[in-house]
Amino acid sequence: MRRYVLTITCPDRIGIVAAVTGFIAGHGGSVLEAAQHGDLSSGRFFLRIEVTAESLDMAPDDFRTAFAPLADEFAMTWQLSDSAERKRVVILVSREEHCVADLLYRYRSGDLECEVVSVVSNHQDLRSFVEWHGLPYRWVPMGTEPAVRRAESFAELERLVGADRPDVIVLARFMQILPDSFCAAYPGRIINIHHSFLPSFAGARPYHQAFARGVKLIGATCHYVTPDLDAGPIIEQDTRRIDHADSPDELRRVGRDIERTVLARGLRWHLEDRVLVNGSKTVVFA
Amino acid sequence: MRRYVLTITCPDRIGIVAAVTGFIAGHGGSVLEAAQHGDLSSGRFFLRIEVTAESLDMAPDDFRTAFAPLADEFAMTWQLSDSAERKRVVILVSREEHCVADLLYRYRSGDLECEVVSVVSNHQDLRSFVEWHGLPYRWVPMGTEPAVRRAESFAELERLVGADRPDVIVLARFMQILPDSFCAAYPGRIINIHHSFLPSFAGARPYHQAFARGVKLIGATCHYVTPDLDAGPIIEQDTRRIDHADSPDELRRVGRDIERTVLARGLRWHLEDRVLVNGSKTVVFA
Amino acid sequence: MRRYVLTITCPDRIGIVAAVTGFIAGHGGSVLEAAQHGDLSSGRFFLRIEVTAESLDMAPDDFRTAFAPLADEFAMTWQLSDSAERKRVVILVSREEHCVADLLYRYRSGDLECEVVSVVSNHQDLRSFVEWHGLPYRWVPMGTEPAVRRAESFAELERLVGADRPDVIVLARFMQILPDSFCAAYPGRIINIHHSFLPSFAGARPYHQAFARGVKLIGATCHYVTPDLDAGPIIEQDTRRIDHADSPDELRRVGRDIERTVLARGLRWHLEDRVLVNGSKTVVFA
Amino acid sequence: MRRYVLTITCPDRIGIVAAVTGFIAGHGGSVLEAAQHGDLSSGRFFLRIEVTAESLDMAPDDFRTAFAPLADEFAMTWQLSDSAERKRVVILVSREEHCVADLLYRYRSGDLECEVVSVVSNHQDLRSFVEWHGLPYRWVPMGTEPAVRRAESFAELERLVGADRPDVIVLARFMQILPDSFCAAYPGRIINIHHSFLPSFAGARPYHQAFARGVKLIGATCHYVTPDLDAGPIIEQDTRRIDHADSPDELRRVGRDIERTVLARGLRWHLEDRVLVNGSKTVVFA
Repeated sequence: MRRYVLTITCPDRIGIVAAVTGFIAGHGGSVLEAAQHGDLSSGRFFLRIEVTAESLDMAPDDFRTAFAPLADEFAMTWQLSDSAERKRVVILVSREEHCVADLLYRYRSGDLECEVVSVVSNHQDLRSFVEWHGLPYRWVPMGTEPAVRRAESFAELERLVGADRPDVIVLARFMQILPDSFCAAYPGRIINIHHSFLPSFAGARPYHQAFARGVKLIGATCHYVTPDLDAGPIIEQDTRRIDHADSPDELRRVGRDIERTVLARGLRWHLEDRVLVNGSKTVVFA
Repeated sequence: MRRYVLTITCPDRIGIVAAVTGFIAGHGGSVLEAAQHGDLSSGRFFLRIEVTAESLDMAPDDFRTAFAPLADEFAMTWQLSDSAERKRVVILVSREEHCVADLLYRYRSGDLECEVVSVVSNHQDLRSFVEWHGLPYRWVPMGTEPAVRRAESFAELERLVGADRPDVIVLARFMQILPDSFCAAYPGRIINIHHSFLPSFAGARPYHQAFARGVKLIGATCHYVTPDLDAGPIIEQDTRRIDHADSPDELRRVGRDIERTVLARGLRWHLEDRVLVNGSKTVVFA
Repeated sequence: MRRYVLTITCPDRIGIVAAVTGFIAGHGGSVLEAAQHGDLSSGRFFLRIEVTAESLDMAPDDFRTAFAPLADEFAMTWQLSDSAERKRVVILVSREEHCVADLLYRYRSGDLECEVVSVVSNHQDLRSFVEWHGLPYRWVPMGTEPAVRRAESFAELERLVGADRPDVIVLARFMQILPDSFCAAYPGRIINIHHSFLPSFAGARPYHQAFARGVKLIGATCHYVTPDLDAGPIIEQDTRRIDHADSPDELRRVGRDIERTVLARGLRWHLEDRVLVNGSKTVVFA
Repeated sequence: MRRYVLTITCPDRIGIVAAVTGFIAGHGGSVLEAAQHGDLSSGRFFLRIEVTAESLDMAPDDFRTAFAPLADEFAMTWQLSDSAERKRVVILVSREEHCVADLLYRYRSGDLECEVVSVVSNHQDLRSFVEWHGLPYRWVPMGTEPAVRRAESFAELERLVGADRPDVIVLARFMQILPDSFCAAYPGRIINIHHSFLPSFAGARPYHQAFARGVKLIGATCHYVTPDLDAGPIIEQDTRRIDHADSPDELRRVGRDIERTVLARGLRWHLEDRVLVNGSKTVVFA
């Protein structure tokens, strides 16, 4: 069923929902889902409304034109998504398979509604698996180069990714730190999975850090990428129980299951326009 | 902060939310929370809106009068609750303390916004604990009587409970089956905690049933009471992991923690008008 | 690291652990893990000991010979597994991919230590995916045949499976009921995933049953197959939260994640000899 | 049923379990539970064995004498607990009731097998509740004193606690930092509950820190107290889901449930001698 999703952020005041739902009802719109949040700290209001396409008496572009005056009146930042226009996804990956394997399983089974455009990697390991899906696999070696060559590699990476015109870039255990320019080029559109329950164990080797500290649960965090490493707005997290008998390798094994689940959930919500950025945090209408 | 909660059920059609939020905005109402659900199976629509009292230009009764024509237009079943009028709660309990102890802890700490009016029991065990809270403890012995005496006991129970004019009756491990007449007198207002993950292990001794079957998790279920034993609309459930080494007594120990948590959550949602009955099921705007 | 796993069931009495660990220590055995359980209901004792292969002064067959008198003395049912001899696994599947995709991901990444010998299906849907792994895909059509043909199909299935000499048969959403003879031929060696939290919603269309009942969590159950449908000893279960807004299709989507996780965990424990059958229940040394 | 619990830590080597279980079997000991762990990082071995008292042919002190030579041979640190000698518990608390209320409920219902000797507080708030249990409530005001007076208050606290000869001291939301001398006097015997999922949000106001960072789950940590604030060996942790709509007050409300559960579990394990300290970590035979 084709659907439009309207997402809105604006200063909180009385009458926003009445105005927006009145506008939609006035055009025959049948609402499938609606969720809202007024944030007391920032004074911002967040709204997501999902409407069946066939119920509206307008095409998406006409909706956008007709809605603009109302949006201006309330000083809204807003967008209307059309489920018929699937978001373009580029996946970046290094050598570890678990996240990309899970995303591609969900993609081919229809769980994730999007168009995976390409997979980009600094290694060759996953080429055969990706290509079995009929997807292009782009290789940008960036292992052990000196700084100059490294900058060239990232320029090549940025060029290749950009050529695929992604709506979303997913770092599915991509083990390189992206340059700030790359992060800045896709604000709120790069999704990373970090293999710890942030803010604990940011940085390298989080499972070893967790083992050393003796925690009783480990976790993973899906977040938007910003130039500040591991500090972007958190989309989703989860944890699982471990015990004293689990070695760092066991933690990595358990952690892989958390990572792939949390990343898939976060990406799914992003694709469905359920995640609205609120400063350094997120509003998630799950 | 004083709040009004408007809950609505009606046939689903276009424009309900616009009409209701338009009405509220027209009276200056500042919305704290709003949630909705259109049920495809039944074609019914469910809405809950929470408004700050001070923002509205009317008292609750004036609101009710002014809203009635709109409600009629959409064939709504609806009510407006005022947080300043705390719901009256009567707790029924037998000998096991864990649920009532948890409810009263949450009551005295302000976690549960209500007025606990009395505790009624067929045993004397918990009198001192209840009375320490300054609450009346009403004793209706009903142990081993023949049928005639039993009916008299239940009549006495019903009379005592009724005299306290409860908005909600909570069966906090009350180990007697209520007569149908009692159930029918408080539709959607009697909340029970059953010590299994229904529909598994309905009836007596669920922990022994669970032990015999060898399940790997046990659970508890909070539901509205109907004349069909353990078959009323489910409000909340949860489960917890056990293993082969756990005896039936261990299951009871673990289960007590699930029961008290699930009951407290279910009751809290009910008190906040977050639970709407939808036939044999519930809509919970948690 | 090569390991031997000794698993024992016998009548409970004093001195079993001392005798067994004394035997192992006497042969230089370095114990990696040990777990035990005395079952009060049945009076049976269960023991699992994992030893590094290089520490023992005997080969596995010599161990078996030397250990036999001790085993007889305590009336043990026992076996010694050698991690160097990987268990042979045959996977049966119909059309749904999620369980087999997860198992094969774990197989190729080394998470599941075994040898997947073949995948057998009554449909062609998953042939390409399975064959990409270099595994034989055996097709036994059994859709809409009359009873006679159906028996022939099952005979063919049983013949094909048998020819692969499986140690374990995994029903990874195989949507046909196995004949009793098949079940009887592999006692404690056929593992099924049922898409409900048994004993709730046994039989067909459990997600629709769950939706109709209005439960607040759904689950999945991994169990050994016996001639009694959905009643075999439970190995592992898990649940996840849903709510009133989730359609049966949503339940199926959420359920797929539970199913594949629970099946993978159950199979892994079986492969590592962590599951001992105790009548209609299991002891799981996880 | 009266039980002895033998707990052992020693350098790992072959034959420890055989020697210990052989000793126990030689004296008729019927083992209820046994668990072991060899820690590869430290090379230490950990063992816990629970035996029915009536099965042994010796009293506890005779056991200790008879076992000593074996313990010396393996360089064991060890102890034998007798369930008939209940551990003496002193609870320290400030103003928040949830943890102490939960501990006392479990105490009076028999869930926690121990002897609560007294409750000590720097406030008067909980006196009536504690005294209803028939327990002494000791008040040591320590609010806003200058440093000198503060040291006196702590000396008084230490004196009062010491006079009750505690086996365990539980900080059930005691909001004062204990002096190093106090910590040092009870190594591995002071249990604290911290209201965050450590190492995240150590220090003050963790729920506000969690709110500011926008995490999607919050947690609590039960740990042994050492002079390093919030850095002692972790006994138990748990987490629960929150969302963008939850205010810091909501986090505190949800957090209280996690805190009391995690503290009760950690204390229970400690009372049953299931927690063995391994450097800055713990081995928990749950």
